Amino acid sequence: MTIDAPDVIAEVEAAFAAYEAALVGNDVATLEALFHDDARTIRYGGTENLYGMDAIRAFRRVRSPVGLKRTLSETVITTYGRDAAVAMTLFRREGSPGKVGRQSQTWIRFADGWKVVAAHVSVIEE
Amino acid sequence: MTIDAPDVIAEVEAAFAAYEAALVGNDVATLEALFHDDARTIRYGGTENLYGMDAIRAFRRVRSPVGLKRTLSETVITTYGRDAAVAMTLFRREGSPGKVGRQSQTWIRFADGWKVVAAHVSVIEE
Repeated sequence: MTIDAPDVIAEVEAAFAAYEAALVGNDVATLEALFHDDARTIRYGGTENLYGMDAIRAFRRVRSPVGLKRTLSETVITTYGRDAAVAMTLFRREGSPGKVGRQSQTWIRFADGWKVVAAHVSVIEE
Repeated sequence: MTIDAPDVIAEVEAAFAAYEAALVGNDVATLEALFHDDARTIRYGGTENLYGMDAIRAFRRVRSPVGLKRTLSETVITTYGRDAAVAMTLFRREGSPGKVGRQSQTWIRFADGWKVVAAHVSVIEE
């Protein structure tokens, strides 16, 4: 298995960047489109555990669009073969001094492109 | 891509069960063997962010073996193709009433078996 094939990395980096822009811009349609639309998709969020795309959609659609801006650091995207990748990043928000967020995503390539099949977001003390 | 091929699921379930037994039993050698020994392996833990297997090993080896027992629930293992899987589970500990833990792992099949390449553990209020 090839780890970090340059062309695969480039694809996942583009998908990750699109997701980040959609998150900060509260572009819910794009956020939803970048998750695998399936009952097996799971997202553990800052304060909630969402099992299945229906639960994830319901959460997104009522989320407050306020205070979403954030700064990423120590972002690492690693691809395994041509169809699987993990994207790990820390994030900080101006309104939350002394706290660091962690976001992990597992991306899988489907016929219609790269999609997140599992995500986990949590915040801890620095 | 086949999702949840029965033989692949069975393999990852066995690896996941071995990891859980090692975690609760503080079998550090097995825990380490089930992670991909690579600088790109990342583990976001309850209070720490570990980049690379060296950091993960250093953390494991000084971890307290007290109070590790836990009860899993809503565990979902999903396989994507033959070489990638995600394992998501909630957990609770008797000593932490009112709290629920979330553990997510990305497993990849290498020549020497299934290994965790990314993990994220966090605890939130119920």
